[in-house]
Amino acid sequence: MKTYLDCIPCFMHQALRAAKMATADETAIKEILDRTGEMIKTIPMQATPAETGMMVYRIVKEVTGVDDPYKAIKRKHIAEAKSIYPELEELVQNSNDKLLTAIRVAIAGNVIDLGINKTFDIVSDVKKIMHQEFGIFDYEAFKQILDKAENILYLGDNAGESVFDKLLIKALKKPVKYAVRSVPIINDTTMDDAIESGLDKVAELIDSGSEAPGIILNQCSAAFHEIFNHADLVISKGQGNYEGLSDCNRQVFFMLKAKCAVISGHLGVQEGAIILKQYNGGRL
Amino acid sequence: MKTYLDCIPCFMHQALRAAKMATADETAIKEILDRTGEMIKTIPMQATPAETGMMVYRIVKEVTGVDDPYKAIKRKHIAEAKSIYPELEELVQNSNDKLLTAIRVAIAGNVIDLGINKTFDIVSDVKKIMHQEFGIFDYEAFKQILDKAENILYLGDNAGESVFDKLLIKALKKPVKYAVRSVPIINDTTMDDAIESGLDKVAELIDSGSEAPGIILNQCSAAFHEIFNHADLVISKGQGNYEGLSDCNRQVFFMLKAKCAVISGHLGVQEGAIILKQYNGGRL
Repeated sequence: MKTYLDCIPCFMHQALRAAKMATADETAIKEILDRTGEMIKTIPMQATPAETGMMVYRIVKEVTGVDDPYKAIKRKHIAEAKSIYPELEELVQNSNDKLLTAIRVAIAGNVIDLGINKTFDIVSDVKKIMHQEFGIFDYEAFKQILDKAENILYLGDNAGESVFDKLLIKALKKPVKYAVRSVPIINDTTMDDAIESGLDKVAELIDSGSEAPGIILNQCSAAFHEIFNHADLVISKGQGNYEGLSDCNRQVFFMLKAKCAVISGHLGVQEGAIILKQYNGGRL
Repeated sequence: MKTYLDCIPCFMHQALRAAKMATADETAIKEILDRTGEMIKTIPMQATPAETGMMVYRIVKEVTGVDDPYKAIKRKHIAEAKSIYPELEELVQNSNDKLLTAIRVAIAGNVIDLGINKTFDIVSDVKKIMHQEFGIFDYEAFKQILDKAENILYLGDNAGESVFDKLLIKALKKPVKYAVRSVPIINDTTMDDAIESGLDKVAELIDSGSEAPGIILNQCSAAFHEIFNHADLVISKGQGNYEGLSDCNRQVFFMLKAKCAVISGHLGVQEGAIILKQYNGGRL
């Protein structure tokens, strides 16, 4: 997915939010905004928003020296998600369609997103999404592919959401590789976050090689490409991964909440819609 | 009022919004965003946000050649406001406290603001504000000053809101000078807009000399300063005028809806609060 003009003010918001997380020094924050402002003219509009997002966070790191401004808040979100995990697990166990309920839980976890200019409340938002109608619902196709799949690649998104991913991975009942970001970027799940979320108990954790807040294939390692190309089923969580893979050359199932006007417009759904989308390669 | 770090992403939003109003040419819009981005490092943080807003709109004008991107929408808002004016006038006439109801109507009109990153619906928002509790309510002081005043300076804000100002000016029952912006800036009221709003029937219209979306005293004409300094009562509408006058050296009554986190924080009220504030000179 390309960068839209509407993404540009959002980059400034992201810069301000990340800068404030990294430092209380107003001069440093202003320098981050100055440099982000200067960067705008260099943004390749054909690149994904996630790639520009990466540049913003590099500026924050260069100015403040802080390479993981969201570290503490990621811990908090993982802990919050873990605290409601037993309740959601029970919900899945008691439901008529365990797989679908687990998919809902995993998508509900996608409300935890600090790259987006929205506030959220994990517990109440997750519960709301459990009853929300899907904007795109390719569930039958998903079940068919899952049924035949012998290996699954699951592309993680945010820390905290990662805890809910565990529930879905258990419901898939197949061998799963779970891909994380190579470095801390916004509140995305890194290897440490995945382990803290308990994902090592249910999946093989792999490093995607991507330093952007989304899977950008030309950044990913050869080892990741090998797994990506040969997985029987790829599940992609969240907006950043959607941005990176919406034009890719293989089948992917996207699970996300469309949290901004640009993404919802690209998907052709209302802002706030929850999505289970089958994509079969070639431009969307 | 100084510029806050939180104002900076908002300048990018304003640039995008004004650029889209002025042109559909994506290359031109990107150029406006590039130049606004470059401008960020030059923003004097001790200046008011309204002064930087002026710079943003100058860029839009320079790139597109359009000096009044909001012209059509100002016409529409004035027409919409006029269409509910009779109903609101009746409301004032039938109320126990005509002056207070007219103040409410005038503040309600302040929802019409295209410099703010919010959407609004004139009719429903105005009706909601008619029943909203004030965040700051210096009404007794206002009545006392009004009672003794022989001449009033009323500082206009947005086009459309200007129609509601007419109702309050009638309720003041005193000679009023109504100040407008010197040039089109966002959707602020210019001389043409004031006349179209029917304000020439109830007040003497004067040009403030300010080209910013707010009264910036060092930009205003000598004639305006003379009137400003000698008015018995100054009524200042909206956020832009508040930004310009919140540190000025004379008494001002501010009437506005606090529509963003920066302004509501500065006033010490909740976002969305309606304000009738007595300011007596010296820093707030």
